Amino acid sequence: MPLNFQQVILTLQQFWAERGCVLWQPYYTQVGAGTMNPATFLRVLGPEPWNVAYVEPSIRPDDGRYGENPNRFQQHYQFQVILKPDPGNPQEIYLDSLKAIGIDPRQHDIRFVEDNWEQPAISAWGLGWEVWLDGQEITQFTYFQQVGGVTLDPVAVEITYGLERILIGLHNVKAAWELPWTETITYGEVRRQEEFEHSKYYYEVGDVQAMREVFERFEREAEACLANGLVVPAHDYLLKCNHTFNILDARGAVGVTERQGYFRRMREIARRVGEAYLEQRKALEYPLLKEQGTEKKGIGNGASTARSPLPTPSAPLPFLLEIGTEELPAADMDTALSQLRERVPALLKELSLEHGSVNIEGTPRRLVVSIDTLSPRQPDREDLVKGPPADKAFDKDGIALPAAMGFAKKNGVKTTDLQVREQDGGKYVFAVVSQKGRPTPDVLAEVLPKLIESIKFEKSMRWLPASRRAENDPGAAFSRPIRWLVALLGDIVIPFEYAGVLSGNTTRGLRPYDSPEIMIPSANKYENVIREAGILLNKEGRKASIVEQVNQSAVLVGGEALIEEGLLNEVSNLIEMPTAVMGGFDREYLSLPREVLISVMKKHQRYFPVQKNGKLLSHFIAIRNGDDIGIDLVRQGNEHVLGARFADANFFVREDLRQPLEAYRPGLSKLIFQTKLGSMLDKSERMLKLSAQIAKMLELDEVQLLNLQRATYLSKADLVTQMVMEMTSLQGIIGREYALRSGEQKEVAEAIGEQFLPVPTSKVGVALALADRIDSLVGLFAAGLAPTGTKDPFGLRRAAIGVVQPLIEHNISFDLSEAIQKAAKLQPIEVKVEVQAQILEFIAGRLKVVLNDAGYKHDVVEAVLAAQSKNPASAAQAVKQLQVWVEREDWNSILSGFARCVRILRSQSKDPGSRTVTESQIIEAEEKNLYEAIRSTVHRAPSTVDELLNTVVALIPSINAFFDKVLVIAEDETIKQNRLALVEEIANLSTGVADLSKLEGF
Amino acid sequence: MPLNFQQVILTLQQFWAERGCVLWQPYYTQVGAGTMNPATFLRVLGPEPWNVAYVEPSIRPDDGRYGENPNRFQQHYQFQVILKPDPGNPQEIYLDSLKAIGIDPRQHDIRFVEDNWEQPAISAWGLGWEVWLDGQEITQFTYFQQVGGVTLDPVAVEITYGLERILIGLHNVKAAWELPWTETITYGEVRRQEEFEHSKYYYEVGDVQAMREVFERFEREAEACLANGLVVPAHDYLLKCNHTFNILDARGAVGVTERQGYFRRMREIARRVGEAYLEQRKALEYPLLKEQGTEKKGIGNGASTARSPLPTPSAPLPFLLEIGTEELPAADMDTALSQLRERVPALLKELSLEHGSVNIEGTPRRLVVSIDTLSPRQPDREDLVKGPPADKAFDKDGIALPAAMGFAKKNGVKTTDLQVREQDGGKYVFAVVSQKGRPTPDVLAEVLPKLIESIKFEKSMRWLPASRRAENDPGAAFSRPIRWLVALLGDIVIPFEYAGVLSGNTTRGLRPYDSPEIMIPSANKYENVIREAGILLNKEGRKASIVEQVNQSAVLVGGEALIEEGLLNEVSNLIEMPTAVMGGFDREYLSLPREVLISVMKKHQRYFPVQKNGKLLSHFIAIRNGDDIGIDLVRQGNEHVLGARFADANFFVREDLRQPLEAYRPGLSKLIFQTKLGSMLDKSERMLKLSAQIAKMLELDEVQLLNLQRATYLSKADLVTQMVMEMTSLQGIIGREYALRSGEQKEVAEAIGEQFLPVPTSKVGVALALADRIDSLVGLFAAGLAPTGTKDPFGLRRAAIGVVQPLIEHNISFDLSEAIQKAAKLQPIEVKVEVQAQILEFIAGRLKVVLNDAGYKHDVVEAVLAAQSKNPASAAQAVKQLQVWVEREDWNSILSGFARCVRILRSQSKDPGSRTVTESQIIEAEEKNLYEAIRSTVHRAPSTVDELLNTVVALIPSINAFFDKVLVIAEDETIKQNRLALVEEIANLSTGVADLSKLEGF
Repeated sequence: MPLNFQQVILTLQQFWAERGCVLWQPYYTQVGAGTMNPATFLRVLGPEPWNVAYVEPSIRPDDGRYGENPNRFQQHYQFQVILKPDPGNPQEIYLDSLKAIGIDPRQHDIRFVEDNWEQPAISAWGLGWEVWLDGQEITQFTYFQQVGGVTLDPVAVEITYGLERILIGLHNVKAAWELPWTETITYGEVRRQEEFEHSKYYYEVGDVQAMREVFERFEREAEACLANGLVVPAHDYLLKCNHTFNILDARGAVGVTERQGYFRRMREIARRVGEAYLEQRKALEYPLLKEQGTEKKGIGNGASTARSPLPTPSAPLPFLLEIGTEELPAADMDTALSQLRERVPALLKELSLEHGSVNIEGTPRRLVVSIDTLSPRQPDREDLVKGPPADKAFDKDGIALPAAMGFAKKNGVKTTDLQVREQDGGKYVFAVVSQKGRPTPDVLAEVLPKLIESIKFEKSMRWLPASRRAENDPGAAFSRPIRWLVALLGDIVIPFEYAGVLSGNTTRGLRPYDSPEIMIPSANKYENVIREAGILLNKEGRKASIVEQVNQSAVLVGGEALIEEGLLNEVSNLIEMPTAVMGGFDREYLSLPREVLISVMKKHQRYFPVQKNGKLLSHFIAIRNGDDIGIDLVRQGNEHVLGARFADANFFVREDLRQPLEAYRPGLSKLIFQTKLGSMLDKSERMLKLSAQIAKMLELDEVQLLNLQRATYLSKADLVTQMVMEMTSLQGIIGREYALRSGEQKEVAEAIGEQFLPVPTSKVGVALALADRIDSLVGLFAAGLAPTGTKDPFGLRRAAIGVVQPLIEHNISFDLSEAIQKAAKLQPIEVKVEVQAQILEFIAGRLKVVLNDAGYKHDVVEAVLAAQSKNPASAAQAVKQLQVWVEREDWNSILSGFARCVRILRSQSKDPGSRTVTESQIIEAEEKNLYEAIRSTVHRAPSTVDELLNTVVALIPSINAFFDKVLVIAEDETIKQNRLALVEEIANLSTGVADLSKLEGF
Repeated sequence: MPLNFQQVILTLQQFWAERGCVLWQPYYTQVGAGTMNPATFLRVLGPEPWNVAYVEPSIRPDDGRYGENPNRFQQHYQFQVILKPDPGNPQEIYLDSLKAIGIDPRQHDIRFVEDNWEQPAISAWGLGWEVWLDGQEITQFTYFQQVGGVTLDPVAVEITYGLERILIGLHNVKAAWELPWTETITYGEVRRQEEFEHSKYYYEVGDVQAMREVFERFEREAEACLANGLVVPAHDYLLKCNHTFNILDARGAVGVTERQGYFRRMREIARRVGEAYLEQRKALEYPLLKEQGTEKKGIGNGASTARSPLPTPSAPLPFLLEIGTEELPAADMDTALSQLRERVPALLKELSLEHGSVNIEGTPRRLVVSIDTLSPRQPDREDLVKGPPADKAFDKDGIALPAAMGFAKKNGVKTTDLQVREQDGGKYVFAVVSQKGRPTPDVLAEVLPKLIESIKFEKSMRWLPASRRAENDPGAAFSRPIRWLVALLGDIVIPFEYAGVLSGNTTRGLRPYDSPEIMIPSANKYENVIREAGILLNKEGRKASIVEQVNQSAVLVGGEALIEEGLLNEVSNLIEMPTAVMGGFDREYLSLPREVLISVMKKHQRYFPVQKNGKLLSHFIAIRNGDDIGIDLVRQGNEHVLGARFADANFFVREDLRQPLEAYRPGLSKLIFQTKLGSMLDKSERMLKLSAQIAKMLELDEVQLLNLQRATYLSKADLVTQMVMEMTSLQGIIGREYALRSGEQKEVAEAIGEQFLPVPTSKVGVALALADRIDSLVGLFAAGLAPTGTKDPFGLRRAAIGVVQPLIEHNISFDLSEAIQKAAKLQPIEVKVEVQAQILEFIAGRLKVVLNDAGYKHDVVEAVLAAQSKNPASAAQAVKQLQVWVEREDWNSILSGFARCVRILRSQSKDPGSRTVTESQIIEAEEKNLYEAIRSTVHRAPSTVDELLNTVVALIPSINAFFDKVLVIAEDETIKQNRLALVEEIANLSTGVADLSKLEGF
């Protein structure tokens, strides 16, 4: 019989107490996680050691499911452990704790899945993992990097067990409610009724106004506490603010901007609490630090300081470097491999080390560099080193002056060996420095740490405590902690230390086999050793294996697997030994929207969905890390998890569908769009008016207009459905789905669904998207929220692109400036003319990016946009055409002909357009010829680039003849002006089409 | 090495888990005690079984001591256990748990000290004990009787360990801060800094207005939850209200009346929460009940149902009944003993059982009835039973009618044996019924349960679960649970069952010896057995032993013990084997006010103080239950406790004395006296004005007036000092002390100290007390808060007595009606004339009680009060005099002489006082004689009873002669009226002195 709920807690308490943890208690005010308990939040700050373990019944109002979900509740029991500093093997200790409560890693699939933890309410972040047990997240494992805005040193390891989920895995029950709390009482008997009640309270009963007021009061109390230096009381009120906010949030009462405001306020308090705590501990002289002793070790440990001289190989040898890490995130693994692929050959070249083929491989736990053969030593070489100018080095008599002596000494040569050579028109002293090639082992011992250090990640972490670092050394930074290093040249261990780890010849095996230490006799044996350990080192090999297994599995149920490259790549980066596990789920869930099903399977679970004839089957394929021992347990676990996730989605959809989509619209009044711009309902009302005007601009027919109006009316309603509140990425998708199920027109539903696509397919969809995006741009610019620098909290750059792209792709002519003007009139705040111009310019900027990204030449894009940026579609057409023209062989002559007209006008001061051609004043033949050519060619102002340039081409001979023969700048002012007027007629042809002067070669 | 803090918790968790408890977690909102956690508060309600154990870090803001007190903190760790139903031996299980954590009862003094737990905020109460470990309260042990206004069935046993105090005992450290939390970290390192911070927050920083508002919001949330049937969320908000109230309270912001209001509101929610929970569980059909099976046992268990016939003794035998209980409260033991002393002989008489001497003894754990000899059986006897009237029983022919037949059958006689006898003037049928005496064992088996049941206590409790009771039987009620019964007649066990316990011949020994079971071979061996077990059964014996030991101990330190009878009596009721333990405390505490020291030692600790030449020494004497093994540990423990208590008092006094007493006065504005009547400061201001007027009425001299004004000004200031807030009973005492230390006049200080005495010694003290009490009476009556029935929340009856008594004892003439009128003018609300009259009447009522209680005859008191109730002192004098008069031998003649005058006037209709005597119309000699007697005797209206009656006595001969000879009711109207006028002059003499017509014999 597996341990019951309370036995698991007792066992974990005992386990961690034996490992030196203070056993602490749950906090006396509601917290969303054990992290918020001051035993974590405060004690992780500062240099003092702190090891603690405690249960935390964590309260998250919006996770409430009325007791209906098998493993999602507004309250769940966490078991929280903090280890500060990092003990060096926290993952292994953690896995031991799982064994202590009866989870045998051999029988399950235990995985460390990337999780970059961030808690904006307390200005905290860290890197680590979700630990999965058969697909179920049972633990969060984080190396805290920052808390309360303070960078942690030492870093603290946080291990947060999700007790219910662990017990579900242990007991293989369908829902937490069935878990035994004691021998005779179930978890459900103790908890289920109150779960229902709290859910109802948080979702339906809590008084929004009262909670807002309470938040204010608590915030002021926190501030009063801080003003009096009361750290823990201030923190308490921060927690109370947080919980109060969570109630408001669960009630759906917090808009986007308002949320930011609340977070900002909480973050500010968190920051001040953290600071105050640090100051306090400093003033107390870090009592816990003294107690533990301040003994610091220098770099390296005893073993490495007394190093015997390295042998020098006599012949080329194979080389192996294995960087053993805790589980790397999928993307980090890729980025590390590609850096190594670039860096290693370059490094060998720099080092002048001859080598055979270089092979870079990796799994989540190891980055491997192997080199077929590596020269036993560097070749000797001579370098010519430049010294001071000759006349400063030697006097007239050739006697060495101090400059020469210094230079010679520095380079280890005699002054008499210095040579004088000419360089860059001067005479300089040179030394010929012979450099003896060093044995490869010595070179490697020196460069390998640097090689590892050179690997950079988008987000990296530190983990080494000060006691294991040199003074002022911040410690190694890496994607995840490095735990072992193998460096072998043949069978010679290349000794070095990095990140507190000494290199050696011992690797570690598969996680599910308990990561056994395995000795590698020599570099060329590595591949065998690893293969025998069951590890598929080659990523493509893992991918192929996954694809094969997944396909085979799908066939078994008569379907085909949906294998998306992104997912395949990710999954192959998550395991070292892939084994496909096919599982099923309740067919009733197939009634959920397809996107929901797929999104849950792929995004949340990294499963491959299975379909048949384009319809999903009630199966999924998971990839386990390890072999097939205990595979049934693994399957059941994964099935349970997916079932729970689908139950959750089902819960939302079912709850949501109690009313038609339309019924949600009024709820938008509770979502603040932006304080000055009102609620989402206000925005929706504006959109309704704007889309009617846009419809006219787009010349929609009557049916389209009706559909657009309805779609706009409903467009934002899904934001307040539970499903979207849960998975925001489903906005629009859910709107479409619910619209259909509410009996709306298909076109209406599609438009709703398309509004978030970069480019909606239907014209109605485009119109809706335009109304949405233009309203946002105009309103938010007017509210002073234009993007600055890298900050773009409202995604206005994306919105602008979203205006431009559909117009281009649908090739819809559209006057942005008119649309902006119309949208401006609808805003609740004034949108000044300057601001409107600014918005137009901003969109034009995005248009430019779009066009550049499409591969058009910069000058072409600039030329067109200088003339027409209000109308993206026509601008795009123009760019397309112009790009063809500039690529013509005769382009130079065309451009230069046209340019002659433009340039001569520029040299004259008179305003363009003020001149007119008077036929009677035409004197010369070429002049006349040009005049007539214009009259016969140009019948109206060209509206496209092609029209413009075809005209220009037709005129080129006449233009050239005119300029060659006729003196435009005649002495007679009248004649001169008449000739200029003629030229101007040509130059003006480009007006509104393109400013050709922006083109290269103009 | 004793267990550290977290090991104790782990051990207790393990211990109780093994005994079937659900291990629960601390609650997620601040609670003052584990009781408030729904795992207790809710789960103890209703019929379902529930056993639970958990840690509760309990928050009590006003226990904060800035981390300076060794064992008093705003947060302490409770370990809470609920056993429902009572397992039958919870004390023993509890003592086992102490052993499990390393507390050997043999080495310590573990005591169960009466504690009647009450929690008004949740309408809950229960009976039980504080468990003392060497004088330190380490556990509260309670049989819950009611929670949330709901009577519990089954009753739940609550065991609340105070973990810090237990560990202090275990580790014998000076303060909790020094306790090891783990091997390397102390309790202080984990908790002390935050203790300081919280204290500061609760006492100095918390925003009163904000907390009031938050309370309102939370209360409304609780109500909204209740309206939606959400029990736990409602309860959560009740807890939040409670904590918010506690903050307000710690800030000193809650006045007396306001407090009642807050409590009423919280109680109301608690009641509704309790009700809602019960309904909910019922609707759920009590899931935990089903699970455990509903198996019910009838009365008794297997052993008792098959009972073999009892032997009948052949000769008188000694008898013993021992009722073995859990520790009885001291007063309950006394009351039980006195009931048994009265009841047992009466019972034996009723049963016609001849017996030798009856001896009733008791200790906290046993009530013992022993009878030297008891007749082996009842004597036989004949009873004459009255039947129907003779004529209904027999017809004229003497044939028995149905009435006779029925009567005969009922009484087991033949109709022919019926006798006809006369009774009450009628003839009836009688049956002579012979009753055979029954053997004493049978009789006892029947009556002993009833005897036990007949013992009543002021507060009694139930504990038996329904499963061990007959249907509809509420179960036994007793002071504390009965756990064993010994009933022996000689060596015959008298078998019966009471309260689920079967009688037998096994008693239990001393607690410190683990209450071993001891067989009693026969009744007459009991005394020996008990003595050998070390138990002093006789209370006087215990008292004598205590006195002797205490005196001896005191002599050792050259002092004398202060042995107050009340304390001695109590202590002797708390132990079975007294052993004196002398301890000392830090001499610095001797600077605390004597009353504080004594009150702490006696009231809190039941120690005997030691003094020398009237000055306290730094010693105390405690009485241990048990022998002197481990006595040093016991001493140290007790010293620690007392030290902590003194440290606490010292803390208060030191904090308080940072400012002079005067500085506290403004703080009275925060104490509400009564909503309509304003704050205590308002009251104090009124008193200042009133006392000035009272001073005039009392004719104080100038110095007295000045002192009175100052004393009144300062009189209430001590109410807001910390020491008085902590021990309200010290009000006045602390005022006096602080006044002296603030440099006030001795007279001023004394008056402040005397204001709460029933009768102040100084005249200034009297004036102050009068001002206080009259203001309260007048104000609260006007506010509609006059006492009704048994309700007198403001103690107005006591206040009225407090007005009357000083006036009487100091014999101060004082016009109450004038004082009331003056006080009325000072009130912030109107005091109508009717209300003033009502107040006067109310005080007169108390005056009457006082005089009656003083032993004066009721009629005497009534006679005086009918004439003068406004002036208690003179009324008392009058009563005193009158009482002497009515006891005179010639009183009847005096009274009847006077009465003749009064009575004859009553028979005449004319208004009294409208007549006048005209000398010229006097005719008869006796008439003339009386007229002259009056003129020579009465020179002014008598003002005292003596004056009145001496006058009357002087007139009696003339009066009698007058009435004997003169026809008062003459035919001539003028003569008649003149004679009546003469009589009236005599009758009127008593006006304003006494209404003699109220006297017996008038």
